Amino acid sequence: MTVRVAVAGASGYAGGELLRLLASHPGVEIGAVTAHSSAGRRLGEVQPHLAALADRTLEPTSADVLRGHDAVFLALPHGESAPLARRLGDETLVVDCGADFRLVDASAWTRFYGSPHAGTWPYGLPELPGARDELRGAGRIAVPGCYPTAVTLALMPAYAARLVEPDAVIVAASGTSGAGRAVKPHLLGSEVMGSMSPYGVGGGHRHTPELTQNLSRVAGERVTVSFTPTLAPMPRGILATCSARLRPAFSGEDAADRVRAAFEEAYADEPFVRLLPAGQWPSTGSVVGSNTAQVQVAVDRDAGRLVCVSAIDNLVKGTAGGAVQCMNVALGLPEWLGLPTNGVAP
Amino acid sequence: MTVRVAVAGASGYAGGELLRLLASHPGVEIGAVTAHSSAGRRLGEVQPHLAALADRTLEPTSADVLRGHDAVFLALPHGESAPLARRLGDETLVVDCGADFRLVDASAWTRFYGSPHAGTWPYGLPELPGARDELRGAGRIAVPGCYPTAVTLALMPAYAARLVEPDAVIVAASGTSGAGRAVKPHLLGSEVMGSMSPYGVGGGHRHTPELTQNLSRVAGERVTVSFTPTLAPMPRGILATCSARLRPAFSGEDAADRVRAAFEEAYADEPFVRLLPAGQWPSTGSVVGSNTAQVQVAVDRDAGRLVCVSAIDNLVKGTAGGAVQCMNVALGLPEWLGLPTNGVAP
Amino acid sequence: MTVRVAVAGASGYAGGELLRLLASHPGVEIGAVTAHSSAGRRLGEVQPHLAALADRTLEPTSADVLRGHDAVFLALPHGESAPLARRLGDETLVVDCGADFRLVDASAWTRFYGSPHAGTWPYGLPELPGARDELRGAGRIAVPGCYPTAVTLALMPAYAARLVEPDAVIVAASGTSGAGRAVKPHLLGSEVMGSMSPYGVGGGHRHTPELTQNLSRVAGERVTVSFTPTLAPMPRGILATCSARLRPAFSGEDAADRVRAAFEEAYADEPFVRLLPAGQWPSTGSVVGSNTAQVQVAVDRDAGRLVCVSAIDNLVKGTAGGAVQCMNVALGLPEWLGLPTNGVAP
Amino acid sequence: MTVRVAVAGASGYAGGELLRLLASHPGVEIGAVTAHSSAGRRLGEVQPHLAALADRTLEPTSADVLRGHDAVFLALPHGESAPLARRLGDETLVVDCGADFRLVDASAWTRFYGSPHAGTWPYGLPELPGARDELRGAGRIAVPGCYPTAVTLALMPAYAARLVEPDAVIVAASGTSGAGRAVKPHLLGSEVMGSMSPYGVGGGHRHTPELTQNLSRVAGERVTVSFTPTLAPMPRGILATCSARLRPAFSGEDAADRVRAAFEEAYADEPFVRLLPAGQWPSTGSVVGSNTAQVQVAVDRDAGRLVCVSAIDNLVKGTAGGAVQCMNVALGLPEWLGLPTNGVAP
Repeated sequence: MTVRVAVAGASGYAGGELLRLLASHPGVEIGAVTAHSSAGRRLGEVQPHLAALADRTLEPTSADVLRGHDAVFLALPHGESAPLARRLGDETLVVDCGADFRLVDASAWTRFYGSPHAGTWPYGLPELPGARDELRGAGRIAVPGCYPTAVTLALMPAYAARLVEPDAVIVAASGTSGAGRAVKPHLLGSEVMGSMSPYGVGGGHRHTPELTQNLSRVAGERVTVSFTPTLAPMPRGILATCSARLRPAFSGEDAADRVRAAFEEAYADEPFVRLLPAGQWPSTGSVVGSNTAQVQVAVDRDAGRLVCVSAIDNLVKGTAGGAVQCMNVALGLPEWLGLPTNGVAP
Repeated sequence: MTVRVAVAGASGYAGGELLRLLASHPGVEIGAVTAHSSAGRRLGEVQPHLAALADRTLEPTSADVLRGHDAVFLALPHGESAPLARRLGDETLVVDCGADFRLVDASAWTRFYGSPHAGTWPYGLPELPGARDELRGAGRIAVPGCYPTAVTLALMPAYAARLVEPDAVIVAASGTSGAGRAVKPHLLGSEVMGSMSPYGVGGGHRHTPELTQNLSRVAGERVTVSFTPTLAPMPRGILATCSARLRPAFSGEDAADRVRAAFEEAYADEPFVRLLPAGQWPSTGSVVGSNTAQVQVAVDRDAGRLVCVSAIDNLVKGTAGGAVQCMNVALGLPEWLGLPTNGVAP
Repeated sequence: MTVRVAVAGASGYAGGELLRLLASHPGVEIGAVTAHSSAGRRLGEVQPHLAALADRTLEPTSADVLRGHDAVFLALPHGESAPLARRLGDETLVVDCGADFRLVDASAWTRFYGSPHAGTWPYGLPELPGARDELRGAGRIAVPGCYPTAVTLALMPAYAARLVEPDAVIVAASGTSGAGRAVKPHLLGSEVMGSMSPYGVGGGHRHTPELTQNLSRVAGERVTVSFTPTLAPMPRGILATCSARLRPAFSGEDAADRVRAAFEEAYADEPFVRLLPAGQWPSTGSVVGSNTAQVQVAVDRDAGRLVCVSAIDNLVKGTAGGAVQCMNVALGLPEWLGLPTNGVAP
Repeated sequence: MTVRVAVAGASGYAGGELLRLLASHPGVEIGAVTAHSSAGRRLGEVQPHLAALADRTLEPTSADVLRGHDAVFLALPHGESAPLARRLGDETLVVDCGADFRLVDASAWTRFYGSPHAGTWPYGLPELPGARDELRGAGRIAVPGCYPTAVTLALMPAYAARLVEPDAVIVAASGTSGAGRAVKPHLLGSEVMGSMSPYGVGGGHRHTPELTQNLSRVAGERVTVSFTPTLAPMPRGILATCSARLRPAFSGEDAADRVRAAFEEAYADEPFVRLLPAGQWPSTGSVVGSNTAQVQVAVDRDAGRLVCVSAIDNLVKGTAGGAVQCMNVALGLPEWLGLPTNGVAP
């Protein structure tokens, strides 16, 4: 079986990465490749790294163009996926890399995005408990945000095994591609090289309710998060440093062993989550280009906290790779098909 | 009055930065410039950016060479300052950029550094309450670590005004020069460019007891810290993202205003701490080369936490600039003399 | 004497750097600071690194605002300086960092800039033979382009001493700030980090006729240049690698010594050009923030060519520092006043 | 058929990249993976990005360990390949990524490497005229140096079609991984970030005789080169800017068209060389991780020169990818098998 796929929003970074991964996916044939303002241009002009697809022409993003594919990937600004998806039939799997359908809580959506909630689709993080059952055979999938992917994978075993209290403090550094390809002054190379800065401080970042949603789902109780994203001088990668107070039951000398056991059990069979050997710490550089999430954990007995760190490539495991992984699950392909686990380093 | 200064450890990054600042300090004349393995070489070979001092010859680091200067700056690996300082008389101001004399608690020293404690010198962070009185006329000064400088300046007003609970969570990103000039595989350009990674996770970093010491001194009670340093792909800069739970008295709608007022009051007269206007966030890129610390603060009401962020140049305000500032205070010069507040950006 | 200066175009990179240098210039007082679209904003918002000037308000760029200063620095897009300068009286020194008045050859101007030539001002590269005489007391000065500064300083002694044939091949790498602060897709951090690319290949870059003009002036005959600029993943700096065929008289064994002697003689008394000791090569990192040009030269006997390399900070020696140096010369101040020679490294 | 391969020198950058490519090569099974000082360690410690091979143990580099594989890739310091290869039988294809067997001219070898010449193997640049015939069925292959690959592909059509004179001027920028993983002070991240510098200026770089050899082979006459390599602040990539004087026959108005036609013809059927559409220029960022060489060419009529630019990933097309491509040719596999053409960008 060959899955015929389309990519909408192919002129952006997420769209480009979808094409890179899909082009080497052995079960996939690339159909329509669409964009808004770049429609009509050769893909090679817009995404010069995609040599194998350079002569493709970008078509306009519309339901007419996208219809008829087995799977459609949407890599569009939030708000644009909903109207488009409505016009695609059930025979087409729609995988949305945008935010429109990620949140269950409509009021949280409106508070953070300022518009009416479009609905909720099955949430495309296969590593979440129960998620694969939801995704198998699904016709619509909401791919998680890049930060929520990194943070959830870092903290999930801690909440699943009730190691920590339900308030987490998260500081995450992201490469600049996480901010997209829209041209903004603070994203100029001259500004970002050699500089780190925070943004959305104090709970303002739109991924905050998604973090709360994921961690609460795992914990079985409401988890609050203090989330500070920072912009780092690198094109790709997220390093999420997450901590929470250890529950009293984990204050003893054996805490580190019990914590490690919980993490090992959680990720023993995950193809794309790699709990590193003790003493080795995640680095974003070693997951660039791959769908791998590196995870490590430490007990800080003086501070009484568990510190969980993950590293992902925001464009792969954090977006396009996660999307392809979901397509694989939804369509009954091997989950790992077409997805690199080795990073491109140095 | 011209102060005749010597710099020991002039082949490293801290030593080079001391020379850069001292060379343009109007009250200073540079005397001996010393190194260990580079002794005998021209400074221009070792520090090619110091054009104005290129023809100086590095002398060996010894008490004989350093003696007789008005002020001696030590930029040496920890453990080397104590024996050297002992052989310098009281007529010489010794400013130690290393860790030897920073900690009051001898057991904390031994736990983190694995050697007997050499003693405690006046702590060279003039912005700490009471510090200027201690430093004025002092003959020995321990310059703070780079992370403690950044973190203390971010959190000090919060603890001084009792805004937050006594446990803080700190994640800080440092440029690679913070790791010094010793050649280690993980510091190769190929490894660090495009990558972020944590180290010393779970309370292991040697700056942890210094953080505890500073924040406890300000708070008047024991403050515990969870500190995670990360290595960022930039040569210079520290971005410290710090948070702590707001005390119940600061849970109301007016919390943000009261917090801001506390920070404004704390830093109104500080020449090198710049509380940014509301809505503007620190960036390391804008303090490179300067002795300025940028600080900003936000209340996260959902998480019930105060988030305090600072940015410094680890080699300037975090080391060499802080050291010169201390010399100025100790010797009765204007505190700001010879210290740039404008950064070199972009 | 205190010189009262104004900076027009203070929201850009060149304007920001002018302010950084002028703020620490002991003979200068900063008057009006102007911008176009940012007029009315606080300087601290637009140039967050200029802590010492953060509370200044940007005024609109107009002759009325600029008039009455002793010196006015123009850091404007080409084409905007001429009309403005015309409205400023002779009592004001106007130093133009733009291209409008650099070229002598009106047809070259029109060919490369597509507009009528505005005229020619004294050319502000004091190191050129005879230039200081022209600049002393001048009321109008055209600051060289950043590439021409780097290239001319690399090749000048070779042409002055008739070491090489009159056609030069130049490949220069520039940091992204050389492209200015205007927001363009290819200047996004995500695009430039980790990437090098050429532009204006084949003679199309607007600095080409200026290179020809300078080298021909030195050589006393028409010099043709093949100039390829490249964009490098760094915020600042130009590395110019220049070569030309050695004249037959320099083909012997003593060529290297004679070449070195020519370069040493040329730069023996220059405060801002540093011919490096044999064996040491320029690096842009070591001149960042300084007005220093590093120069080195090698004879390639197999290829029969002389290779001359220079490194400058494009925003300092290549623009703002060069401009301040010219002001110093024009107004009879010490040429080096207020200009750092030590770089900010690492 | 599955080819059983071994990689010697797997702890270095070239070795790591060989493993990354071979791990996803559908016709290959990875056998022994060897190193010197890292022998006995888990691969995951040394190459943390190779998640799929993390649990492999590094064996010592010795003929005993390497023997018995269908193909052995050597990624060793120069001088180490020859003795090892001698002890491997003819039934094993040996692909040497080092310099030992690249040069035909023994005296050039000795002059540049200071040791006796070990011999000459078939030269593994399949794009060279006649090369594929030599490589098909070969038992020993010398993979070209990274700079020679980039430069030869940029200039080859110009010399094949006799467009230019036989002396070329080449300035090439390389990412730091080109300098290998050996720990040297000038390769520290703090030193290289934000800085560009030349090295081996004046004909001293060891790739110079290889450049001469390749271009002379294509031109059918002795070509001299002036080659200046520069170190750029990026982990990967080579941008080669090459030029030579146009022959008189190409001085006319139709020169650009005739040049373009020559380049189009040369590369029409090459799977890994991509002549970009007119107006688009190579960038190293767009070939990272891929075996693609981007090439573009321009006529500079004023300077009378042809400017040819190429961009490659030094570790892929410049080393490991080129090596795998050669293995494919030698063993009769499809030349493109297992080799990505799409880059990882941004």
